[in-house]
Amino acid sequence: MRLATLRAGARDGALVVVERAAKRFAHAGAVAPSLQRALDEWTRCEPLLRDLEARLEGGEVEARPLPVGAEALGPPLPRAYEWIDGSAYLNHVVLVRKARGAEPPEELKSDPLVYQGGSGGLLGPRDPLPLPDPAFGLDFEGEIAVVLGDVPRGTTAAGAAGHLRLLLLANDVTYRGLVPAELKKGFGFFVSKPATAFAPFAVTPDELGHAYRDGRAFLRLSCTYNGAVAGDLETGPEMHFSFFDLIAHVSKTRALTAGTILGSGTVSNHDATRGVSCLAERRARETIAGGEPVTPYMRAGDVIRIEAFDGDGSSRRSVFGAIEQAVVAGSVTL
Amino acid sequence: MRLATLRAGARDGALVVVERAAKRFAHAGAVAPSLQRALDEWTRCEPLLRDLEARLEGGEVEARPLPVGAEALGPPLPRAYEWIDGSAYLNHVVLVRKARGAEPPEELKSDPLVYQGGSGGLLGPRDPLPLPDPAFGLDFEGEIAVVLGDVPRGTTAAGAAGHLRLLLLANDVTYRGLVPAELKKGFGFFVSKPATAFAPFAVTPDELGHAYRDGRAFLRLSCTYNGAVAGDLETGPEMHFSFFDLIAHVSKTRALTAGTILGSGTVSNHDATRGVSCLAERRARETIAGGEPVTPYMRAGDVIRIEAFDGDGSSRRSVFGAIEQAVVAGSVTL
Repeated sequence: MRLATLRAGARDGALVVVERAAKRFAHAGAVAPSLQRALDEWTRCEPLLRDLEARLEGGEVEARPLPVGAEALGPPLPRAYEWIDGSAYLNHVVLVRKARGAEPPEELKSDPLVYQGGSGGLLGPRDPLPLPDPAFGLDFEGEIAVVLGDVPRGTTAAGAAGHLRLLLLANDVTYRGLVPAELKKGFGFFVSKPATAFAPFAVTPDELGHAYRDGRAFLRLSCTYNGAVAGDLETGPEMHFSFFDLIAHVSKTRALTAGTILGSGTVSNHDATRGVSCLAERRARETIAGGEPVTPYMRAGDVIRIEAFDGDGSSRRSVFGAIEQAVVAGSVTL
Repeated sequence: MRLATLRAGARDGALVVVERAAKRFAHAGAVAPSLQRALDEWTRCEPLLRDLEARLEGGEVEARPLPVGAEALGPPLPRAYEWIDGSAYLNHVVLVRKARGAEPPEELKSDPLVYQGGSGGLLGPRDPLPLPDPAFGLDFEGEIAVVLGDVPRGTTAAGAAGHLRLLLLANDVTYRGLVPAELKKGFGFFVSKPATAFAPFAVTPDELGHAYRDGRAFLRLSCTYNGAVAGDLETGPEMHFSFFDLIAHVSKTRALTAGTILGSGTVSNHDATRGVSCLAERRARETIAGGEPVTPYMRAGDVIRIEAFDGDGSSRRSVFGAIEQAVVAGSVTL
């Protein structure tokens, strides 16, 4: 099942169910006005939403065309109670630290890196990326995320599967130029992380079939930067910590509420020919190879497109729909 | 005006207006079911809530007794879209760093320290403080916080006043024993910060009269630890960054949504006879004076009571109501 949120005046938008062919949708307001409300009452809502999906596929409910260009589609959760982002692809951590002459953290393979991000205002798939100052060093980051149900404190990885409700695709934007000063202060990324963007569809794990297993999504992540392929990456095999591992880590000392979004961190593959899902990693590879980065960060007018695919050939499908965002200089208000 | 949230089945509880004498309340469900909803529609709701308050004081609406012991009162926002905590009392930063032989950050006086905390599950004023392992080093932290309306990106300190809706009193609990390993990882406090607790009443700035000015609350913060006064502190004069300054800082690169909670950080006074609002600061003073800390962190059965007062003598009033929490060993579920 794939769900989406129409921008519709209300802060949380309007929940819709998307048909398999992703050309039409049905309003789900009779089940729950918003995705957050559906997550709040998942036990009641999930079967009703699945029933609505079946009736949509069967032509038994009114189907409306999905808005062209997707400007009318918001992020699945326009505001979320938490956005916690991991760094589960260790290759990325190792490369970025190597480029600056630093060792990877001692507990790299046993203790997940996570940070708490801002969650009150999230961007939709076509929202512009503001660049108030070129020195901010804007970068995209393609990653898989999950939406959780209520997670009790002390949940184990073995017990985590039942708390994972939906999968998302994110562009976890970073102002790289602001990172060093923020990290030096010791309290995290705060001002170096503007609002994160999400692809339009939130997808139940069963929708991925065998491409979802062991708390990982085995998809192809495509990042196209100004029309050129920046990365065509495998999301599954190199995700060192599964979402189950990450859930256990982030619930170690507190419970999490339904609707919490948990990210994988930038997807990264050891094989350099796969490319990258963020410019920082390309710059790290350039620095390791030639002493300094060559690729600049994003500039006004640049366009980043991020999509994830399952299947092959004729069964290949854009699972979450596309993120496609243009960089806008100055103080665009979002 | 003082607002509170009754625990009432729903995830966001039920909004009530509290009378001045803080003995009775009136249900505000006809205006907004929850405080979050009132914040979402503040322009519509504020005058209606103030009218309800006037009718409550005038005996024109049904008044109900406030629940004794306040277990039935939740935090004003049981779940919030963001919880961002500053560290605006520089004395605290200087003392804690001095105790571990470190210099204060270079930009201490010009660049606020803030971290993004978990906001999906907040504790009420009487909720137990879980201590899964004594080595976690549980500590309380008394602080003032504010609830924001929608804050556009790039808001200035001069333009911040109109975005500040309500004041709160918080116990920003920390597992001190987990802090060093987390900070060493470089991404913030994550697992070292369990759920934050709040006093029952959310208070409009005008309710404080002259005790609210220049984006600061000029109150007396009382911290009573196992029945003994740990601190009796001034919250106003030594708050280096006002809430207006903090709003400008945290909105530098992204907008904030209505209901975002922004904290002052642990209240701290230069005058040691005032005491402390957290054990870490007492331990820092002990370390500076005698080479090592003497005071242990909290243990099972310990009780911390935090209140803030305005006025003097017979006009002295507990502005936010009291936080009073007992430490419970093991895996209490919240």
